[in-house]
Amino acid sequence: MREIQVEKKILGANDALAARNRRIFAEKGAYVINMISSPGTGKTTMLEGTLGRLVAGGLSVAVIEGDVQTRNDADRVASTGVPVEAVITGGACHLDASMVGKAYSNLAPRLPERLDLLIVENVGNLVCPSAYDVGEHEKVALVSVTEGEDKPLKYPSLFHAAASCLITKTDLLPHLEFDLKLLERNVRAVNPSIRLFLVSAKSGEGMEGWIEYLASRAKETRACP
Amino acid sequence: MREIQVEKKILGANDALAARNRRIFAEKGAYVINMISSPGTGKTTMLEGTLGRLVAGGLSVAVIEGDVQTRNDADRVASTGVPVEAVITGGACHLDASMVGKAYSNLAPRLPERLDLLIVENVGNLVCPSAYDVGEHEKVALVSVTEGEDKPLKYPSLFHAAASCLITKTDLLPHLEFDLKLLERNVRAVNPSIRLFLVSAKSGEGMEGWIEYLASRAKETRACP
Repeated sequence: MREIQVEKKILGANDALAARNRRIFAEKGAYVINMISSPGTGKTTMLEGTLGRLVAGGLSVAVIEGDVQTRNDADRVASTGVPVEAVITGGACHLDASMVGKAYSNLAPRLPERLDLLIVENVGNLVCPSAYDVGEHEKVALVSVTEGEDKPLKYPSLFHAAASCLITKTDLLPHLEFDLKLLERNVRAVNPSIRLFLVSAKSGEGMEGWIEYLASRAKETRACP
Repeated sequence: MREIQVEKKILGANDALAARNRRIFAEKGAYVINMISSPGTGKTTMLEGTLGRLVAGGLSVAVIEGDVQTRNDADRVASTGVPVEAVITGGACHLDASMVGKAYSNLAPRLPERLDLLIVENVGNLVCPSAYDVGEHEKVALVSVTEGEDKPLKYPSLFHAAASCLITKTDLLPHLEFDLKLLERNVRAVNPSIRLFLVSAKSGEGMEGWIEYLASRAKETRACP
């Protein structure tokens, strides 16, 4: 009971800071996504593939990169030339609005005047990050075809909270006994209105649709922040 | 600061309950492991393969099965004929000593007189479960070859807390660009004394060594609980 009360208080304070972040992001006019998945689903590899294509398409992008330990992922993203700010949470299993707000303040002086997209890569965790609003326009859930068809049913909170879902590593499908249709059904059972993208950062399959979606959202946000 | 104080208090209360569980498990004489990994690493599939072999070898085993939602995994385990008790955490991202203590009480009337092994399958999460002692003899970390070589460095708390590490899904290695030696080095960099097992529940590769290890631990515990 005590734990629940403390949790409610923490989440309430977080929501206020998330609203503040949202106002700051709106001033910049950027579309903001919050990428969430298990460790090892391929968030950073997807991010690299996404950044390369967005930049090649003339969009300006920046990244806030969350990790429990190490700057490895931030360094991988930085090597694409995109502005990136690392958040090392120490032990914390999720990013919260305060961490993202501070990271954005650090990032701001390095941002171009026009920013189309801000991508937050959360800590690898299928449970906790889904409870924290960091001021994003949408949460993007990622799940790979090596993880099992049952994940949306077993960890519904993320799939319920996300507006889009990337099913990653589709290049591995020929080597797996995996029922893709069952995974899709399970995702939709938790969230009937979720947008599904089947993607492989390795083969490039499905990346075009995902990039077009982000570009159209960025354009809409630019018109009406 | 307030959050940290609350966290310390919760962990302190948990440790007292974990010590209580440990006394109860010692009365039964069972060796107790706590299996922890990301969602999708293959904990339940490994568990099924492990149970089948242990039972065939004449050992008596029981399972406490943690999940955020659904009894799917508990049902999979129950179909092996082994006594199983499900813990549905609702939203909680880890098992704690209180949940495991209650589950064991429910399980106790169904246990055989001699129990060699009690296996706790934790909620799929590479971060939070590692902070909670549930009264186990050892935590077992699982990481699959589809998750990337950097996971032990990015999520060190589990690999630091675990006495054994199963590297799973080795049957997929021919289809991946994966540096197994690098993963092993990264595991040992975080925990030089960890026991490593390379295993595939699908092909059976490496399962023998893992089963022999559990059987020898169960025998030692029976002799000196």
